[in-house]
Amino acid sequence: MMQRFLNDPDDVVDETVRGFVKAHGAQVRLHPSNPRVVVSVDTPRAGRVGVVTGGGSGHEPAFLGYVGRGVVDAVAVGEIFSSPTANSFADAIRAADGGAGVAVLFGNYAGDTMNVKLATRMVAKEGIAVATVIANDDVSSAPLDERDRRRGVAGEILMWKIGGAKAATGATLEEVQAAAQKAIDACRSGGVGLAPCTLPAVGQPNFTIAPGTMEVGIGHHGEPGMRIEPLRAANDIADDMLRIVMVEHDLPPGASVAVLLSGLGATPVNELYVLYDRIESGLAERGLRVHRALVGNYFTSLDMVGVTLTVMALDAELTALLDMDCAAPAFGGW
Amino acid sequence: MMQRFLNDPDDVVDETVRGFVKAHGAQVRLHPSNPRVVVSVDTPRAGRVGVVTGGGSGHEPAFLGYVGRGVVDAVAVGEIFSSPTANSFADAIRAADGGAGVAVLFGNYAGDTMNVKLATRMVAKEGIAVATVIANDDVSSAPLDERDRRRGVAGEILMWKIGGAKAATGATLEEVQAAAQKAIDACRSGGVGLAPCTLPAVGQPNFTIAPGTMEVGIGHHGEPGMRIEPLRAANDIADDMLRIVMVEHDLPPGASVAVLLSGLGATPVNELYVLYDRIESGLAERGLRVHRALVGNYFTSLDMVGVTLTVMALDAELTALLDMDCAAPAFGGW
Repeated sequence: MMQRFLNDPDDVVDETVRGFVKAHGAQVRLHPSNPRVVVSVDTPRAGRVGVVTGGGSGHEPAFLGYVGRGVVDAVAVGEIFSSPTANSFADAIRAADGGAGVAVLFGNYAGDTMNVKLATRMVAKEGIAVATVIANDDVSSAPLDERDRRRGVAGEILMWKIGGAKAATGATLEEVQAAAQKAIDACRSGGVGLAPCTLPAVGQPNFTIAPGTMEVGIGHHGEPGMRIEPLRAANDIADDMLRIVMVEHDLPPGASVAVLLSGLGATPVNELYVLYDRIESGLAERGLRVHRALVGNYFTSLDMVGVTLTVMALDAELTALLDMDCAAPAFGGW
Repeated sequence: MMQRFLNDPDDVVDETVRGFVKAHGAQVRLHPSNPRVVVSVDTPRAGRVGVVTGGGSGHEPAFLGYVGRGVVDAVAVGEIFSSPTANSFADAIRAADGGAGVAVLFGNYAGDTMNVKLATRMVAKEGIAVATVIANDDVSSAPLDERDRRRGVAGEILMWKIGGAKAATGATLEEVQAAAQKAIDACRSGGVGLAPCTLPAVGQPNFTIAPGTMEVGIGHHGEPGMRIEPLRAANDIADDMLRIVMVEHDLPPGASVAVLLSGLGATPVNELYVLYDRIESGLAERGLRVHRALVGNYFTSLDMVGVTLTVMALDAELTALLDMDCAAPAFGGW
């Protein structure tokens, strides 16, 4: 039996979205005719490029929590761990359109790619220009020379932040797309799973991690990682994760990075800080400076025990865009 | 075997505090001589009342996450689920002292009460005036006519917010104390646990919740609740929690409340919104308006599966203080 707060599993997404919009009504609203689209109250802004994303549910506060001012304008919401429909992506695009085109910034999953493509065709007939960026920051999901096969994970959050900031400057669609592409190209992410998650409709874990072991490089839906290993001390895990994400970063001493360490849903908050303590030390040993750190449940996988680490290399442009003011429920703020 | 991110369990608090200060160095700093005290970078402010709290670790982001501008000035950090020492409370009080006295706003636990009392005596010799407020918002921990036996739980966060805001207005120590007392008197909280937590040093759950059951009225450390019941649907649990916290609120239709729904550490984020959806509907049915909602992992208990619901009745003064700008790591903000 699942020890979870659920009603009919078929209703969990509708209930989540409804509760989210009620809790954050000062920042977001439900699309008037599509209950799977959440829109910023500041959207659309005439003459500004809109920013859209979308993805499966179960990753809360992603994706809908990043709708706000200076981040994402509208989000399409899918079933648990499933792509939103093409219709939902199209409605999100229409809602975000202020006449200057819409950048759709999403993760590299087959369903999302297909539905964004279909949605792009649908809105093209209405004269809405769409540019896309597909996030592929998860280094564990394919080798570097097959980067187009890599999945998008928590680096998407930094891509949205950069894309949204660029749009807020009044940039063109091509400029927003280029900034978001640059952002995700500057991100490398890797995850470690200690315990699986349970889909409400299934009632059993959808994969297994044997007690005393851990899965290094696990995906956001339990996709197999690079290796299964005996569970080690937090510092060893932190060192290993940092090595995995830094191996493709070629940063000179003195360079700045942004770090995002996200719990996957059931990881105790204090343990995120235990890991971060070691990760920051490892970056300092490499001569790198953390310009901004995000530590918390930013991109989860239901009740999975685990974390993802994302390191983003910063240059002057990315730093300026990262530092621009913004507001979204997942970023909090009073 | 624990599926957790830990090194030597004896080091978990030091590592947590160190990681926290590294991640949020723009807002907080470690006390120069006491590694169990975290201080706001804006503290002390000459002529302003300081606000201090403290409590056991394992509740992250409480207590240290509420150090910031316009909330708590300094926090004393205890071992897991244990009171900070009197020395740590005293150092936090000294760090927060700007010459106008210090309000210590903490939860009703024997160890904390004793150590705050000792610390108050220590700093009195140095000429620092201290006023205290003891939070007792947990309705499940004792009957109303024994309210001084009730524990403090997540309502403490709203007490800190109100006390910190009042201090920021330049109010006197007595006025800050009165506002914080009014805040906690306006709060009622109740919790439900679905699965226990495991202390790092113990390696086993410190209490049991049988699969298929839930504990209604559970405390933040697994203290027994009002009753053990078969696990029910999320809507039934939400209705029951709301009933429990509203029974002592006597609010006319049209009144405003603040709502804090906190996960206890391992509750999936989306399920918090499933519960909030129903809670908000229940408040609307009572004719009540939610002025502000906080939904997330605000006050946890390691890896417990469960939630606490806090409803605070608002009047004009509390509303104004609640709405005052503030910033602290646990409240996020870009």
